[in-house]
Amino acid sequence: VAPLEVPTGEVKQLSVAIPASVISDTPHLREKTAKLGTIARASSIFGVNNILLYNDDPKHGRDDLELCFELLTYLETPQYLRKKLFRLSPTLRFTGILPPLQTPPHNVPRTVSELKVGDVREGLVVSKKDETLIVDAGLPETVTARGDGKVGDRVAVRLVTVGKNLRGEVENTRPVRDSEGEAKYWGYKVRKTQSISTLLQQEDADLRIGTSRYGSPITDLWPSVKARVEKARSVLIVFGSPKEGLKEILQHENLQAADVFDYFVNMVPNQHTATVRTEEALLISLSLLNFAIAS
Amino acid sequence: VAPLEVPTGEVKQLSVAIPASVISDTPHLREKTAKLGTIARASSIFGVNNILLYNDDPKHGRDDLELCFELLTYLETPQYLRKKLFRLSPTLRFTGILPPLQTPPHNVPRTVSELKVGDVREGLVVSKKDETLIVDAGLPETVTARGDGKVGDRVAVRLVTVGKNLRGEVENTRPVRDSEGEAKYWGYKVRKTQSISTLLQQEDADLRIGTSRYGSPITDLWPSVKARVEKARSVLIVFGSPKEGLKEILQHENLQAADVFDYFVNMVPNQHTATVRTEEALLISLSLLNFAIAS
Repeated sequence: VAPLEVPTGEVKQLSVAIPASVISDTPHLREKTAKLGTIARASSIFGVNNILLYNDDPKHGRDDLELCFELLTYLETPQYLRKKLFRLSPTLRFTGILPPLQTPPHNVPRTVSELKVGDVREGLVVSKKDETLIVDAGLPETVTARGDGKVGDRVAVRLVTVGKNLRGEVENTRPVRDSEGEAKYWGYKVRKTQSISTLLQQEDADLRIGTSRYGSPITDLWPSVKARVEKARSVLIVFGSPKEGLKEILQHENLQAADVFDYFVNMVPNQHTATVRTEEALLISLSLLNFAIAS
Repeated sequence: VAPLEVPTGEVKQLSVAIPASVISDTPHLREKTAKLGTIARASSIFGVNNILLYNDDPKHGRDDLELCFELLTYLETPQYLRKKLFRLSPTLRFTGILPPLQTPPHNVPRTVSELKVGDVREGLVVSKKDETLIVDAGLPETVTARGDGKVGDRVAVRLVTVGKNLRGEVENTRPVRDSEGEAKYWGYKVRKTQSISTLLQQEDADLRIGTSRYGSPITDLWPSVKARVEKARSVLIVFGSPKEGLKEILQHENLQAADVFDYFVNMVPNQHTATVRTEEALLISLSLLNFAIAS
């Protein structure tokens, strides 16, 4: 499964922006967790590189923003590193009910006998001696790796010797390529900002798409959007919340869709429900974007 | 929001087929309920007319089949009729955590003063005198309606007099049209069958699409699928389960995809996760199908 390539051979960067209030419409942590699990899965299926959280409720949104950040970061961490990187926290107590992401860095062998030279896996730097790192990569034995890093860092390690002594090298280049040289999706990063205006100022994407039921139908914009998506090295898609659409959220900060987006798009022409929820819009939009890129 | 029209002016019928084992990968009723809620929402957003459940595990699947049927039927029922049509059942105890479907028959006024002549709403026939039905339509007053029906039936009633006395007529034609004459999506029906072969024998759709990661990428088939979707009066899309893809499910009954489907399609080209779950594939596929129909 090859990643999304732009003509230059570089890998296209996909980012999605999601309001923290996405989890505010249910009081139960169990359902908030499930919703963030849905967002993590949708992002992983379609190879999203960045999930950008923005606070759309300056008064009450900080807790939601922190919860979204903690849970999405936790879910992106390979299972075998979670206990090492996260303290036991009551907010994480329902993560066990979620389906695994099964992205390439999560789907790795758990025993030494299955390892192959050239395998890349995520690990935690547990000690350092001169230029040599000792990396816990979720195996019965640690990996001795050359490369940059300090104790406590999460690093990707490419195995150069397997068997009795596991030796590797820290892999800094992205995309990570497997032993056959194929580029692999390596999960998403999560960032948080205190407002949508800050997010839009900080994020420098070639192509910015806002989604709204008040946008132009994707069917009308298709040839143009498709051509721009194909050429862009980085695409950002921005979503509204269950309470307020993107148009209202922008209005609170005196922003106009036409000024901040290249396209303002209704991704669900002819919707038959009064509203489409953020996590639904995410999967629907990424499905169409993936279709534009792959076709 | 106009419904999906075929050139004849008739409304296209969309059906989705889903294996009962879709809920077998979690032991918790709360998450089974949530997953069926996701399926109900996806179907409603895109105006699915029929959800066809099939038992893909002859040995253990009957309970799952019944649970899927009960929950999906319950969710499609307008909130104000649920207590009247369903007995209190332990299997329904987590339905309160789900977001509402907000389809047209769910989004109706709850007070008499908001009613308009021409409004159509769902109700329950509570008594019958000669040709006159007394219908509980979730209002403080019952509606006196002419038309066919017997006590206990769920009927759609078009209001012809509002105010002190509510009078109406049973609306039998589909699609239901609002007072402006616009066709409205009126929810989905749920059916269940004991195997996929029975389902495929019984369902007589103009166009049958099977979904599988082993199918041809949708990008390759697009012009052909799009043309067929546009012409078809009825489209059936069939999905596999979290445990087994559609290819394996067909193999158990000695069926070949090429014999039973017009197209066998991979709706998620370049997926970056090891698997795509049924409820994810449903939303992804309906997004692309809706795009084909609307463009």
